[in-house]
Amino acid sequence: MADLEFYDVTLRDGAQSEGISFSEYDKKMIFGLLDRLGIDFIEGGDPASNPKDAEFFANTKSSKLVAFGSTRRKDTFVGQDAGIISLLDANTDTVCIYGKSCVSQVEGVLGATKDDNLNMIGESVAFLAGRGKRVIYDAEHFFDGYKENPQYAMQTLMTAFMSGADTLVLCDTRGATFPSEIFDIVKKCVDTFDGAKIGIHCHNDIGTAVANSLVAIEAGATHVQGTLLGFGERCGNANLSTIIADVALKLNKKTNVNLSKLTNVANAIAEICNIILDPSMPYVGSAAFSHKAGTHADAVMKEADSFEHVKPEEVGNMRHILVSEVSGRSVIVDKLKQYFPSITKTDPDVKKILDRVKELEKEGYQFEGADASFIIMAQKAIGTYVPSFSLEKYEINASSPDGKNSATVTLKVGNDIKSASADGNGPVNALDKALREVLSEFYPEINKVSLIDYKVRVIDSASATGAMVRVSITSRDGYRTWTTVGVSTDIIKASWKALVDSLEYRLSIKE
Amino acid sequence: MADLEFYDVTLRDGAQSEGISFSEYDKKMIFGLLDRLGIDFIEGGDPASNPKDAEFFANTKSSKLVAFGSTRRKDTFVGQDAGIISLLDANTDTVCIYGKSCVSQVEGVLGATKDDNLNMIGESVAFLAGRGKRVIYDAEHFFDGYKENPQYAMQTLMTAFMSGADTLVLCDTRGATFPSEIFDIVKKCVDTFDGAKIGIHCHNDIGTAVANSLVAIEAGATHVQGTLLGFGERCGNANLSTIIADVALKLNKKTNVNLSKLTNVANAIAEICNIILDPSMPYVGSAAFSHKAGTHADAVMKEADSFEHVKPEEVGNMRHILVSEVSGRSVIVDKLKQYFPSITKTDPDVKKILDRVKELEKEGYQFEGADASFIIMAQKAIGTYVPSFSLEKYEINASSPDGKNSATVTLKVGNDIKSASADGNGPVNALDKALREVLSEFYPEINKVSLIDYKVRVIDSASATGAMVRVSITSRDGYRTWTTVGVSTDIIKASWKALVDSLEYRLSIKE
Repeated sequence: MADLEFYDVTLRDGAQSEGISFSEYDKKMIFGLLDRLGIDFIEGGDPASNPKDAEFFANTKSSKLVAFGSTRRKDTFVGQDAGIISLLDANTDTVCIYGKSCVSQVEGVLGATKDDNLNMIGESVAFLAGRGKRVIYDAEHFFDGYKENPQYAMQTLMTAFMSGADTLVLCDTRGATFPSEIFDIVKKCVDTFDGAKIGIHCHNDIGTAVANSLVAIEAGATHVQGTLLGFGERCGNANLSTIIADVALKLNKKTNVNLSKLTNVANAIAEICNIILDPSMPYVGSAAFSHKAGTHADAVMKEADSFEHVKPEEVGNMRHILVSEVSGRSVIVDKLKQYFPSITKTDPDVKKILDRVKELEKEGYQFEGADASFIIMAQKAIGTYVPSFSLEKYEINASSPDGKNSATVTLKVGNDIKSASADGNGPVNALDKALREVLSEFYPEINKVSLIDYKVRVIDSASATGAMVRVSITSRDGYRTWTTVGVSTDIIKASWKALVDSLEYRLSIKE
Repeated sequence: MADLEFYDVTLRDGAQSEGISFSEYDKKMIFGLLDRLGIDFIEGGDPASNPKDAEFFANTKSSKLVAFGSTRRKDTFVGQDAGIISLLDANTDTVCIYGKSCVSQVEGVLGATKDDNLNMIGESVAFLAGRGKRVIYDAEHFFDGYKENPQYAMQTLMTAFMSGADTLVLCDTRGATFPSEIFDIVKKCVDTFDGAKIGIHCHNDIGTAVANSLVAIEAGATHVQGTLLGFGERCGNANLSTIIADVALKLNKKTNVNLSKLTNVANAIAEICNIILDPSMPYVGSAAFSHKAGTHADAVMKEADSFEHVKPEEVGNMRHILVSEVSGRSVIVDKLKQYFPSITKTDPDVKKILDRVKELEKEGYQFEGADASFIIMAQKAIGTYVPSFSLEKYEINASSPDGKNSATVTLKVGNDIKSASADGNGPVNALDKALREVLSEFYPEINKVSLIDYKVRVIDSASATGAMVRVSITSRDGYRTWTTVGVSTDIIKASWKALVDSLEYRLSIKE
């Protein structure tokens, strides 16, 4: 029996994030990922708000699926209210309805009286509970409402509870309540409603959504709403991945979540959302266990818990010692071990690689995030690298105002020499297309590789247009994600190097 | 007199973020921005750790600048310790030294005894305080240390305090302390050290750095360390922009920060770091006051405070629903006033410029840091722009492995049509040279212009090599510095636009 239950709203409130919109397929994928991770309740959307959501409910059967909607409208009979009816029609075991718990919202936005609103809450909950639904009541603007008129805020909860709601969720809708206020108010509710589950739903407008959720849990809340990655309108919802790891690893709470899948699921959901996961996201970010500063990296090698509060593997993540000029032999060895398990610190190859890293860093390379380029470079340094192709020549032609951008690439693959030309919306895009066109003939697996990130950093930007540029490219093939890097004063050449490393790395993996 | 002081570590700990590295010029720019925003202390780096930092101290004079370093090494005399000496040599009014406050760290990582460590703290603080420095003592691993051995943790603070430190900063180095623990421990320190300032330095490994800082402030801390945007190693530092707005707007604390500049400075620093500012960052993110949900947007139009806990303008941000013309207009007018002092909000030209800004921002332009391009765009929008030259054609040829990069530029200047060709170490460099060669014949003042910064930002980097890129160029002519911007899917074209704006801007100045 878990101590806490988690309720994810990614499919509804997450879709309110700027730049996110889900297809039905996306929703199914995300649902499946959250389900396998062990999230207890997964909100599918508001079946009344759009036909896509209603269809999703029709096509998804799971006891974890929750339909979301509001209490009945002011002037309708509950049994004829379109929203309430579509909640029933969604055919889920559990429904979540939100209602107003804040007097100024009731009067100012709904234009209803306090009593009207209590009736709306009570009738809606009773109607759904009476038809066998587990009813979760989301008390919108609860904390603001409590601070404005605590008696009325508590009456709304009491009404929902007495009408059959089994979970009362306290929402910090504007996301601006301080942790110190959260504790007292949640505690009051926990003490008042014997037999109800008290839930918490925080937004992050003052940057405290995770902390507020933790404080609420410490005050006795046992149901936690949020989105796995903190996505949501404005500044987002409470980040469930952080909260789950916090309570499981720090408060020793029992949950139904499989922590070792956390990083993997977080990345998979970010990919579906087409968002680059914040590298600094606690537990699951790619930098969450990265160590760059010389003295810190050294300390971590001596005593891992100097700068790590949990073992990265516990949440399915990995430690990254960022390779940089300041790193010594032990950092390099640590990194190489992932690829060459038998290597030791005294191996002469280590010195060759370290020397090469130093040379390349002087040129402006940075292998910190670019493990794929690092490994190719290491193989080259010790002489074990076998290239899958080599460049004979590329040629770029670009002109303006006619907007022409064309590239011709000639490669040698085995004993064959082949060329292809392509136009692009920029010179690098044209080059990328021509390169893939030649290669895919020999290596069809190249077609599975897509580039998901392209970054350009001008090094020593004070040399202006003559400066060194560092290009980094992140690629994906459905299973893996890897990053490569190229440096040159010529942006096309730097991009070429990173492109070549990316494809070489993929071709070096034998499946 | 401010209630709280803020201490920013972007230039040191922020530089530990994956993918961030600063040139000296970047550091100067960031220092200037933080200074003008009203941050009280700005850490410049660790002068002992690398010569670049030492140079920065030599070239920057400000009472806000702080040099950072550690207590003396275990086996040195304090007056001969290289780190302590370089702190003195940095020649700042204030120094911040970190020492260990956690027994297991002292013994496990330093290999020192508890007494050794107290001596190291005491001598280091006394030496620097005795030479007239204001000394801030950063107690590393303080909260973990306190939980392990509270007596020893307090002894380290007492030693620093008795030796002359005027601020004792409690660091949550691993970033894993819960808000509820923070309050009690900070309160204990505030009550113990009469006459010392108590500071707080939180990391975000369990997602609570902002909340922990707020809780510490509520417990009596008056000095807050962090980075303006939360950057830093692993999961980052406490986000000062969030904390500053929280305490000023929610706790009514007096600070020296000019809140109305907050969003602007946040974006400018993100640009320098070549990082896309998290749109959901509280207060300063582009989505922090965005309303997408139908009912939410409606409610906000009825009662702004339904889903907004502060007015966006208070922190220099804007609400985004339907683009609000009133808030937009005043921002534009504010900017135009620098160049056209007589312009007013009702001037019909303002609407023309605003419309054009909106169009261009949709394409990926951002005029925040590019005033020269802004002013040229404004002149074009209202029809007062007189170009000094126009492009007939440019043509680029690049190939590898022969490393050829040549450009031919043909311009029309008055009634003359002239061409020039140039080779460069990259296509943009070749283009830049050819452009200048043609122009300098007509406008010899072009020879005084040098490009001092060239940055490339990939917008929507998920489109990879087909993505939009934004190029920004900073130019100088000995008297002035100005920045211009160009956007295209074609990096050469984007660079061309920024180059042309830069030279046009200079030519528009009549001396």
